[in-house]
Amino acid sequence: MLLQARMVQGSVLKKVVEVARNVAGESANLVFSTTGFSLQANNVAIMVAAVLPSDAFDYYHCDRTISIGISLDSMFRIFRVSSDDDIVTIKAFDGVDCLTFVFESSKQDKVSEFMTKDIDVVDQEPLLHISEAEYHAILETENHAILKMPSVVFARICSELADVGDSVTIKITEKSAKFSTKGELGISTIICRQNLDVDKPEEAVVIEMNESVSVTFSLRLINSFTKTAPLCNTVTISFVSEMPSVFEYKIAETGYVRFFLRPREE
Amino acid sequence: MLLQARMVQGSVLKKVVEVARNVAGESANLVFSTTGFSLQANNVAIMVAAVLPSDAFDYYHCDRTISIGISLDSMFRIFRVSSDDDIVTIKAFDGVDCLTFVFESSKQDKVSEFMTKDIDVVDQEPLLHISEAEYHAILETENHAILKMPSVVFARICSELADVGDSVTIKITEKSAKFSTKGELGISTIICRQNLDVDKPEEAVVIEMNESVSVTFSLRLINSFTKTAPLCNTVTISFVSEMPSVFEYKIAETGYVRFFLRPREE
Amino acid sequence: MLLQARMVQGSVLKKVVEVARNVAGESANLVFSTTGFSLQANNVAIMVAAVLPSDAFDYYHCDRTISIGISLDSMFRIFRVSSDDDIVTIKAFDGVDCLTFVFESSKQDKVSEFMTKDIDVVDQEPLLHISEAEYHAILETENHAILKMPSVVFARICSELADVGDSVTIKITEKSAKFSTKGELGISTIICRQNLDVDKPEEAVVIEMNESVSVTFSLRLINSFTKTAPLCNTVTISFVSEMPSVFEYKIAETGYVRFFLRPREE
Repeated sequence: MLLQARMVQGSVLKKVVEVARNVAGESANLVFSTTGFSLQANNVAIMVAAVLPSDAFDYYHCDRTISIGISLDSMFRIFRVSSDDDIVTIKAFDGVDCLTFVFESSKQDKVSEFMTKDIDVVDQEPLLHISEAEYHAILETENHAILKMPSVVFARICSELADVGDSVTIKITEKSAKFSTKGELGISTIICRQNLDVDKPEEAVVIEMNESVSVTFSLRLINSFTKTAPLCNTVTISFVSEMPSVFEYKIAETGYVRFFLRPREE
Repeated sequence: MLLQARMVQGSVLKKVVEVARNVAGESANLVFSTTGFSLQANNVAIMVAAVLPSDAFDYYHCDRTISIGISLDSMFRIFRVSSDDDIVTIKAFDGVDCLTFVFESSKQDKVSEFMTKDIDVVDQEPLLHISEAEYHAILETENHAILKMPSVVFARICSELADVGDSVTIKITEKSAKFSTKGELGISTIICRQNLDVDKPEEAVVIEMNESVSVTFSLRLINSFTKTAPLCNTVTISFVSEMPSVFEYKIAETGYVRFFLRPREE
Repeated sequence: MLLQARMVQGSVLKKVVEVARNVAGESANLVFSTTGFSLQANNVAIMVAAVLPSDAFDYYHCDRTISIGISLDSMFRIFRVSSDDDIVTIKAFDGVDCLTFVFESSKQDKVSEFMTKDIDVVDQEPLLHISEAEYHAILETENHAILKMPSVVFARICSELADVGDSVTIKITEKSAKFSTKGELGISTIICRQNLDVDKPEEAVVIEMNESVSVTFSLRLINSFTKTAPLCNTVTISFVSEMPSVFEYKIAETGYVRFFLRPREE
């Protein structure tokens, strides 16, 4: 077998596909390599990169790098057949130009198998936008600000502001994050204070910075990924000068989904 | 009084009306006889027959057979006024060409009465498609397969497959039921294994057969009755050569709703 | 500061705005006076009057009467930004023609502030339709009937009847309230009996009258306010000869929302 990747908590894969489709529409590039899986999709305004290293899977075997172009909408419809507690296995066979998705119910009494039509399997290296190591190097050398907060709170704020205006200005200072918008009704401002004194670590609002920043984004774009059921409990937003900002959600412990968004000119 | 039929668990009648309307659209034939109630409706593709013997009611009295043609949509709108825990009483009077529906709240503090406009009351025998005795005789003599499974699982499978294709092929073998469809995305197959080792009897998947069968149905038609809140916990599907297949839901212990569906040519 | 009004249970204000918008559409008259707050809105068919005396607020200070004309839809969109457990503060400053709404999350970790665009602040006395004292005087002198019942039951009845007809006739006799309608399907009648023998006082159905009444209302108008999440557990409906009927919901202990509805000619 060319590829076999099994994830007991299959809902993770389902959510990644769902959010990528909501955000970037059309087609995605899937890459299975010997070290893990990645999905990348983008349109003119936003890029999604999901990475699941092999140890994020319960079983992972891949003979060589497979790079596949696939419609996100088809992927989404395939996964819609699965329940949130299904075990998911993705398989590919040498010489057969299709992927097989197997969804096993957690109670073992139902097995659902989906075989795609012919797909484009190309043996090429993935074109990842930015590697993990490069990303951390950038954070250490450049002026930046990082905001970490509960993902549901962030989603709620951006949803609320979208009722008033169509863009949000995020201003990070030493002790607080200020989200503001204006529209025909007036001006709306939401302030989240740094908050480390919490019962559960995921409830914290943490600010780390060597420079205060103020950047403006399209609320429609942010809401395209926050409106999906949260990928994880916290979101980490990195603002680095002259670069797209990165909204990161950890998944399956060793993996992540990142949304790269270029700020609007003010 | 010509007719008085009272059912404490009135939601049973409400569901029968709802599902008949969803499935067969236009009008139904209601029959009240001295031995009980039946509702029959059909269109070119499917037939619904609901039977509630007099002992399925908490009180039942009917002087003589009354056969009524009535719009399912009107019936549905009348029942929509009732709560799920209402007690329902249906009444008819000699010489008055209307039915009266009484909905009493279980707490006795609210009584809702609905008097229909003139309806066609015809003294004729019901034209039941097939009698209970005939049905069992057929099962004993003919080649057949019977699949009994939790109704929510059956509903979920048919709903999932409808995302992929527009018909389902059900293949019954000794130990498993295989549901499959294909569409532009690919091929989807769901397997349910016979499963008798369950905590509650209604969770079992039971197969009884003297011949393996493979039949194909329109998913739209099946989903027209499975998408209603389940009439009971299990569905029993009987496949008999050269006859429509029967999807049966028991209701109110001694009654049932059956959907007769002719397989598609493959 | 000209005005500062703070309410810990801010959802009360939110609901008042929501229901006023659903019922009376366009714009409302807000009045802040030294003794409290009122909101009044009307269209040709119905009038809403909400009154919250200063002691319904947790903090209330107002230098002089401020009368403001404001779009109910804008108000609604401003409040939509708030959570149901937010603390709401409304502020105005001398010489600044805007209102500021502050929503603080109950956990204190999020503050949302909304500053309206310029609004019309006019120093004039409110034009209240009818004062509290006048209202009670009327009830004592005139022929009347009063029906008090659980608001969810009243809402449910009016919603059910709207499936059958477009107006409801409410008939109050000594021991019961009868709601009836007719439409193309037939006649629907719902009877609620006086019921004082209840576990919780808000479940009672109480009738007080010196004259039996029968009045007819548009169901669309009634449902415009009953379909909002209930303002309180009970509704009190007063029918006084030659006057609009009043549907009253108590709020925040000392406040109320009243809907004045002129009966239809029969």
